[in-house]
Amino acid sequence: MTQVRFALAQIDTCVGDLDGNAEKIMQYAHKAAQAGAQVVVFPEMTLTGYPIEDLAFRATFRRAAWDKANWLATELASEGLSDAYVVLGTVGTDHASDKPRNRLVVLHDGVVQTAYDKHFLPNYGVFDEFRIFAAGDRAVVFDVDGVHLGVAICEDIWQDGGTVGELARRGIDMLLVINGSPYEEGKTHTRFDLAARRAKELSAPLLYVNQVGGQDDLVFDGGSFVVDSDGALLQRSPMFMESLGYVTLDTTRRNQRKEVVAPDLDPDEEVYTACVLGLQDYMAKNHFTGVCLGLSGGIDSALVATMAADACSGSNVWGVSMPSMYSSDGSKGDAADLARNLGAHYEIQPVEPLFDAYQRQLDLHGVAAENLQARIRGVIVMAYSNSHNLLALATGNKSELACGYSTIYGDAVGGYAPIKDLLKTRVWELARWRNRAAQSGMPVGALNIVGNEGGPRGRDSRAGVVIPVNSIVKPPSAELRPGQKDSDSLPQYALLDKVLAEYIEHAHGRADLLRDGFDAETVDTVMRLVDRAEWKRRQYPLGPKVTALAFGRDRRLPITNAFRE
Amino acid sequence: MTQVRFALAQIDTCVGDLDGNAEKIMQYAHKAAQAGAQVVVFPEMTLTGYPIEDLAFRATFRRAAWDKANWLATELASEGLSDAYVVLGTVGTDHASDKPRNRLVVLHDGVVQTAYDKHFLPNYGVFDEFRIFAAGDRAVVFDVDGVHLGVAICEDIWQDGGTVGELARRGIDMLLVINGSPYEEGKTHTRFDLAARRAKELSAPLLYVNQVGGQDDLVFDGGSFVVDSDGALLQRSPMFMESLGYVTLDTTRRNQRKEVVAPDLDPDEEVYTACVLGLQDYMAKNHFTGVCLGLSGGIDSALVATMAADACSGSNVWGVSMPSMYSSDGSKGDAADLARNLGAHYEIQPVEPLFDAYQRQLDLHGVAAENLQARIRGVIVMAYSNSHNLLALATGNKSELACGYSTIYGDAVGGYAPIKDLLKTRVWELARWRNRAAQSGMPVGALNIVGNEGGPRGRDSRAGVVIPVNSIVKPPSAELRPGQKDSDSLPQYALLDKVLAEYIEHAHGRADLLRDGFDAETVDTVMRLVDRAEWKRRQYPLGPKVTALAFGRDRRLPITNAFRE
Repeated sequence: MTQVRFALAQIDTCVGDLDGNAEKIMQYAHKAAQAGAQVVVFPEMTLTGYPIEDLAFRATFRRAAWDKANWLATELASEGLSDAYVVLGTVGTDHASDKPRNRLVVLHDGVVQTAYDKHFLPNYGVFDEFRIFAAGDRAVVFDVDGVHLGVAICEDIWQDGGTVGELARRGIDMLLVINGSPYEEGKTHTRFDLAARRAKELSAPLLYVNQVGGQDDLVFDGGSFVVDSDGALLQRSPMFMESLGYVTLDTTRRNQRKEVVAPDLDPDEEVYTACVLGLQDYMAKNHFTGVCLGLSGGIDSALVATMAADACSGSNVWGVSMPSMYSSDGSKGDAADLARNLGAHYEIQPVEPLFDAYQRQLDLHGVAAENLQARIRGVIVMAYSNSHNLLALATGNKSELACGYSTIYGDAVGGYAPIKDLLKTRVWELARWRNRAAQSGMPVGALNIVGNEGGPRGRDSRAGVVIPVNSIVKPPSAELRPGQKDSDSLPQYALLDKVLAEYIEHAHGRADLLRDGFDAETVDTVMRLVDRAEWKRRQYPLGPKVTALAFGRDRRLPITNAFRE
Repeated sequence: MTQVRFALAQIDTCVGDLDGNAEKIMQYAHKAAQAGAQVVVFPEMTLTGYPIEDLAFRATFRRAAWDKANWLATELASEGLSDAYVVLGTVGTDHASDKPRNRLVVLHDGVVQTAYDKHFLPNYGVFDEFRIFAAGDRAVVFDVDGVHLGVAICEDIWQDGGTVGELARRGIDMLLVINGSPYEEGKTHTRFDLAARRAKELSAPLLYVNQVGGQDDLVFDGGSFVVDSDGALLQRSPMFMESLGYVTLDTTRRNQRKEVVAPDLDPDEEVYTACVLGLQDYMAKNHFTGVCLGLSGGIDSALVATMAADACSGSNVWGVSMPSMYSSDGSKGDAADLARNLGAHYEIQPVEPLFDAYQRQLDLHGVAAENLQARIRGVIVMAYSNSHNLLALATGNKSELACGYSTIYGDAVGGYAPIKDLLKTRVWELARWRNRAAQSGMPVGALNIVGNEGGPRGRDSRAGVVIPVNSIVKPPSAELRPGQKDSDSLPQYALLDKVLAEYIEHAHGRADLLRDGFDAETVDTVMRLVDRAEWKRRQYPLGPKVTALAFGRDRRLPITNAFRE
């Protein structure tokens, strides 16, 4: 009987930060070794951060990453960890073609002992790996105390055959899979089912380590886990926070001890936390400590402000109320209540004097006059951003973004857009969930996000309602003309969001949508609005992807496009 | 001896416009047949437009395109063209995998007689074809009067082997290559050298048909041509305009008659015309008849306004002078002179009253106050756009875009940015060229852009200087504070542009740039500026790619990126 103890080092890296990432790898390797782990497994492209996109083409970057991997191997040995096997990801170079490789390395005994290059390169959805990497085609096994460990990188287990198929033929005692698998609703279960299937094919346990944290428009949820050779869950790490999990492999099979299994999250909590983590990491990695945004009293800005307070504490949130002549008293009161509940800065900047100054000069009417109000607000928000070095947040939701129901350079200004992948109906659901969480007095469980020790970072746990109920229940309005309602221009959101899900996520065309049971008038309205807004979406800020298909690099449609079916 | 006459139908299609594209194919097929052509060859993805990007995933689109190809075959026959062989491109579906294919079809005798699927799928630079298409792997030859014609699609000839390698082994009488090859400086020669090499490998003439026209950020330059089996030029179509060229294949080789060969363009004229065509087609295909932009008196806005006047005539250009307290009298005069030279609308909207209104409320200083001026201008430009349904043009050049030397939501507003891929030094060169062209009284030759008959479209040929000399020779300044010069913040453009070319186009890192001979201070300044501006570039409008590496989908770098070497 041989036993090998593994650590799953689920960490949050930063793209390009070779020093910082190497430092964190050292810390986790030490901690894991102290806890008795012989093999410490990190996520895909740990050292470089992930995804590196076209940074892969910079030769100085590949050289620096390679030097850093060798430095790490030496440093681990000189700090007494030469016995440990440290499995991590980095960028390599294929010497024949001089092309970049997505590489896994095993550091042991002071050297890079083993290297494996990712075989299947994802080139769909948000992934462009066929663009930047050359594929490896050699399966790799390394031994620890006579135990045969196969390795794979993320996509390698999502497709049949390849190097993992080769490992199944050869026979291994365990498969170690390092991953950079971005979050989307429901993906946890998909990953688990896939891993269980592969484990059965391999007749060996499978250890799956995923990275955690935000990188531009992607959020990595962690949720690392281990399944045994029957596909049963042995271990699961928590989602949305750094963690070190452990599992012991016992080669007398059927004898695997179950380790800590983190509980499932509520689906609303999961999505909410993904948005908060995306924002939090964007701020941390781009050196912002505070945010500013317009507070209209509506649900979108209320949810974004609440997420921001959860990401960086209310005291770092600047909410600016910018009432116009068409703003209702209720809206102004709701904005003030929200800021008070969050402990956020609250400033009032009326739009009317500025609007009048423009109108004396320009005399605008109709949509031009409506947009003017929104653009004055955009200028004010950016003035706060410039003056106080704050990250400006855009508050648009996915339904709005889809239909172009926003003013470019107006309410669309910002460096980050936390809810851009949430349909309006989902915005309401998350707002209600956030209030329930506050009312139940729970310290908003999974919100204990990143922070090396897994503890809460700069967040106050509040009791009672956070988001004013009125912001949730009132009919949505842009308040750019008297009595305006979203439903004047758009189908009701309950219907609109269903059409959008089919048209956008499933690429259903007109005939398909009619077959889905939607009426022709609604279908034609929605398709026309979505198609015409493509140019605006291209200029919209980044925001976290949380669904199967987000706007941005996930959906690449031409702006110039005459097809209407 | 067998003779077959071919037509090279170099046309401008629109993505998604199946009806319009089919209509144009009919027209050109008729014209070619009347001129005695037996085989009429159109560009890659003629019927669908190119590139279709993720529109490939919409099943209703693929079905509609397939129906349209069959309709075309029938229609050609019913209009008396059943003897002709019409070679064109469209989207297909692989029935086994249900994946889209980049397909060439030969219409003959009322049916789709032959189909070939592109083998090599480009997935670098601006191309994402591995993302959307499944590769074909079957070489195809069809016979006309006993003459064996091989076919290929664009990238198929850029890589060794594949289906073209197979054709070389089999032996053919001629290779027909249909292309969607975007313009970049110097590419004409690269294409010709490549085609000549393949012709020699095949021991057969090669006919290369490229599309012409603008599609979002790409400009297709046409420049179709034929080389004989020794790689000598037999025919060349003009660049940047629709055209029907002809060549006769004589199977008793060595007997090929040279046909019309369009002359080379001046390199400045080539780039200038590419920018104009990009703008012109973006307007036409998105239904804009006029443009608006801020005229500062500087060289960037002057060049953009001139290009716009060349694209849609001066009478459709709205130039808005928006002087602030820091604008020099010279600048105001230069802007007015330019508008007069172009026959453009000229309006003056002072910024100061609006600036004062904001300052009474916000009291901004430093960069925030500078940005405020630019943002007020952005609001005014968008007010013109909204009120008169004009396409707003952003006037930033590539050097500025690289260094973030612009105000987001200020001078960066717009739906199209005609010179975003021109370094500042290139902007000056093109301005001087445009003045020379005007002074020489030439009707600006190649500016006879698209228009079915190849004639000038809405352009007045002007004599004398167009762009005020002062705009070209004065030191560049943003005029956002007293006495400000670009050189206060940036290296001199002559130096800056050289560093940018290496850092951006060649992905040279810090060590490489030092080895290139640049000093450390300049290198560090430029790298820092470029890296920090990535978030702004993401929100910048589209503009035509004219260099080997443009910002946008050609260069995909993370915003969050700590690597500084």
